[in-house]
Amino acid sequence: MASIAVCPGSFDPVTFGHMDIIKRASKVFDKVYVCVLNNTSKKPLFTVEERVALLQEVTNEFGNVEVEEFHGLLIDYARSKNASSIVRGLRAVSDFEYEMQITSMNRVLDESIETLFMMTNNQYSFLSSSIVKEVAKYSGSVSELVPPVVEEALKKKFKSN
Amino acid sequence: MASIAVCPGSFDPVTFGHMDIIKRASKVFDKVYVCVLNNTSKKPLFTVEERVALLQEVTNEFGNVEVEEFHGLLIDYARSKNASSIVRGLRAVSDFEYEMQITSMNRVLDESIETLFMMTNNQYSFLSSSIVKEVAKYSGSVSELVPPVVEEALKKKFKSN
Amino acid sequence: MASIAVCPGSFDPVTFGHMDIIKRASKVFDKVYVCVLNNTSKKPLFTVEERVALLQEVTNEFGNVEVEEFHGLLIDYARSKNASSIVRGLRAVSDFEYEMQITSMNRVLDESIETLFMMTNNQYSFLSSSIVKEVAKYSGSVSELVPPVVEEALKKKFKSN
Amino acid sequence: MASIAVCPGSFDPVTFGHMDIIKRASKVFDKVYVCVLNNTSKKPLFTVEERVALLQEVTNEFGNVEVEEFHGLLIDYARSKNASSIVRGLRAVSDFEYEMQITSMNRVLDESIETLFMMTNNQYSFLSSSIVKEVAKYSGSVSELVPPVVEEALKKKFKSN
Amino acid sequence: MASIAVCPGSFDPVTFGHMDIIKRASKVFDKVYVCVLNNTSKKPLFTVEERVALLQEVTNEFGNVEVEEFHGLLIDYARSKNASSIVRGLRAVSDFEYEMQITSMNRVLDESIETLFMMTNNQYSFLSSSIVKEVAKYSGSVSELVPPVVEEALKKKFKSN
Amino acid sequence: MASIAVCPGSFDPVTFGHMDIIKRASKVFDKVYVCVLNNTSKKPLFTVEERVALLQEVTNEFGNVEVEEFHGLLIDYARSKNASSIVRGLRAVSDFEYEMQITSMNRVLDESIETLFMMTNNQYSFLSSSIVKEVAKYSGSVSELVPPVVEEALKKKFKSN
Repeated sequence: MASIAVCPGSFDPVTFGHMDIIKRASKVFDKVYVCVLNNTSKKPLFTVEERVALLQEVTNEFGNVEVEEFHGLLIDYARSKNASSIVRGLRAVSDFEYEMQITSMNRVLDESIETLFMMTNNQYSFLSSSIVKEVAKYSGSVSELVPPVVEEALKKKFKSN
Repeated sequence: MASIAVCPGSFDPVTFGHMDIIKRASKVFDKVYVCVLNNTSKKPLFTVEERVALLQEVTNEFGNVEVEEFHGLLIDYARSKNASSIVRGLRAVSDFEYEMQITSMNRVLDESIETLFMMTNNQYSFLSSSIVKEVAKYSGSVSELVPPVVEEALKKKFKSN
Repeated sequence: MASIAVCPGSFDPVTFGHMDIIKRASKVFDKVYVCVLNNTSKKPLFTVEERVALLQEVTNEFGNVEVEEFHGLLIDYARSKNASSIVRGLRAVSDFEYEMQITSMNRVLDESIETLFMMTNNQYSFLSSSIVKEVAKYSGSVSELVPPVVEEALKKKFKSN
Repeated sequence: MASIAVCPGSFDPVTFGHMDIIKRASKVFDKVYVCVLNNTSKKPLFTVEERVALLQEVTNEFGNVEVEEFHGLLIDYARSKNASSIVRGLRAVSDFEYEMQITSMNRVLDESIETLFMMTNNQYSFLSSSIVKEVAKYSGSVSELVPPVVEEALKKKFKSN
Repeated sequence: MASIAVCPGSFDPVTFGHMDIIKRASKVFDKVYVCVLNNTSKKPLFTVEERVALLQEVTNEFGNVEVEEFHGLLIDYARSKNASSIVRGLRAVSDFEYEMQITSMNRVLDESIETLFMMTNNQYSFLSSSIVKEVAKYSGSVSELVPPVVEEALKKKFKSN
Repeated sequence: MASIAVCPGSFDPVTFGHMDIIKRASKVFDKVYVCVLNNTSKKPLFTVEERVALLQEVTNEFGNVEVEEFHGLLIDYARSKNASSIVRGLRAVSDFEYEMQITSMNRVLDESIETLFMMTNNQYSFLSSSIVKEVAKYSGSVSELVPPVVEEALKKKFKSN
């Protein structure tokens, strides 16, 4: 039976840190669904469509990765894909506690879907979408933090704002 | 002299985690005032009146617990009740630091009122009102996380929204 | 291709917390090697042979789990088993940092073997072999923390000491 | 019914941080038993008898505090004193996790005895017996960290060693 | 060559905790620029001009401290001042992780500017501008937390609101 | 006046993580004393003389760095060198709390000597001497973690043991 995993996130926008985890997951699992969750109340910089498009472009190189959006409970999405696992990256202690909370909740909702954590590459252990946006907003270079296509998208976004 | 404690919170809405702490406090102290603080700037899901009503219903079983709302400094409320202690539940590291900050502040305001922390039952150590609301919003089951009356209230709230 | 994972530890002795992780791993992977690492400088309560025997007895129910001992680098053991993954349980923040350190080291030694973390069941989130030994030493009951065969082994150990 | 609490520790030796917690406990509870636990495998600087004697001298001023030693499980000691509560000081995050572990264990052993945490005074939030001993060993002044009688005892100890 | 440092923050308003760090920095460096960053999306209580004015008044006593506002990337400000170092206060674990993130980002932007952390005085280790505002809002006394001129400004602000 | 700093540690043995901090310190301060503290009770792998020799060899390239050993309180060493600052690297949360404790203690002993923390390069954020020794002990490659001369010394040490 093929092993299927879900990589959820808001990806606003995707960074090298996200890509590191998606790549690792694509090696461990037969199929990886990257899922852009569309629930958050806070106003994102990129629309869901833009975020999905950027993710598709930068994960193109991994043959077994598919990108989708979802509005609802992650566990319902995982079930709809017959995924056995949810994969999340861990960077820091603050991540850790939030992730434990979500994992604990997901177990209450469906005990059969396991959450697996992977450690983000040290190089990206302090990288976040928020900090990338903060830097790009003031014209700082983010070329070491995001792929060129995302860098371009950030430039356009902040010019048009 | 009767020992009096205050259990403050926003309780939006009350969960089994809150109830665990209220129950423990009701065994250690002669009288426990559960105080719904009405200060927060972020928009709550339930009105203060609704939160008080739900708390009253689910703490009915404890003979020495009274539920009230308060708008102002917790330390002023505690003084008005002649409480010697403030009781707070501790779940995770992030809780811990925030609670230390509040406790430290309250000591500056009134050194005579002691803050006591109790550990939440392991079963609820990753439970929060926010996560309950997130799940209920997307029609996930929260019956293991909140009492039936709260589950009902959440259903109504999200239907009417 | 069958997915193979390694679950390393000192298991001195195995607890319900360890068994929770081994069980979860046995559902995600085709084959799980539980590896009793025999490197530690601190004096254990049980010999490696005793630890392996207890683990074999309590993991008997899982058809795809094998228990072995190893003296050396975990990454060398994982390679010898053709394992693609190392599986570790995460309980608390202190675990988290130590595990990040080990994972980071193992990546330097062999980038191709991925470390996956699973969250221990809340019920066992504050359980450790050390605390079990401390309680058993003073004749406290550990029946909620370890399987009967381990409880028995602890009783014998502390009687004979 | 009088409220009885137990303040356990190794107190090797007692510091102003310990005294801060004992004092706070003595205000909240009718009777406080300070219990020098005599289990630890690591070699202490002061004998149990010396630690009890120093504690008795520095807690003399609190009318409702009694100091004793105990060899065994804390929960057995608490029961023997009819204590409803165990009181522990919290300083930092590392404290927090260890304390959660102990508390969780004690609940398994006896659900009826509650553990209450108090925040140590900011001034002593980074103070420990180990650091006091390290400083005293090299003739640094510890007069801001321990009472005069303890300072004296440390001087004698390190002279005679 | 004179050593130049930048002390950035939002200072809404300046507290004794901030002043402690500014004072320490003014002893280590020849020149210290206190920089009120004017980027944050969240609505501040004091305008940038008010925050700069309050800072100027309370840092007047330090001869080598200058207060300015800045809208943009901190690293650009530091460069414009020929600063070799950025100085930040560390209070708690949550501070720590956020600061590591910012520092890591700033290194990507300019490897030549070093970030140095100083530990805030224990007395202020749980003090923040937010908690000062919360207390002042409900007429609690903040005289132990902020200088008289800031206390006065807070009173005016909350009267006029 | 020349700025003088002390970089203390046990350096058993020096790693690329230590060298990263020493290098950063050598850029910020006019003179840096690397001080091998010879107090620890735990048995080191390398003698103090060996540790000093390795440090001298690998810090040779920095013109303003001097390596010495010291037996006693760090603050006494710092005073003897007229150092205004102690410099320490910060990697993780567990580091953070221990460092706060030491810093707090050193302030009690001498308020005039400031402790400054620098963030270790991400690449080495999970690197420690202990883990280097563990890997070298089992013939794992440590060439990405320590300079060649240290790698050589580790090989000799574990061959001769």
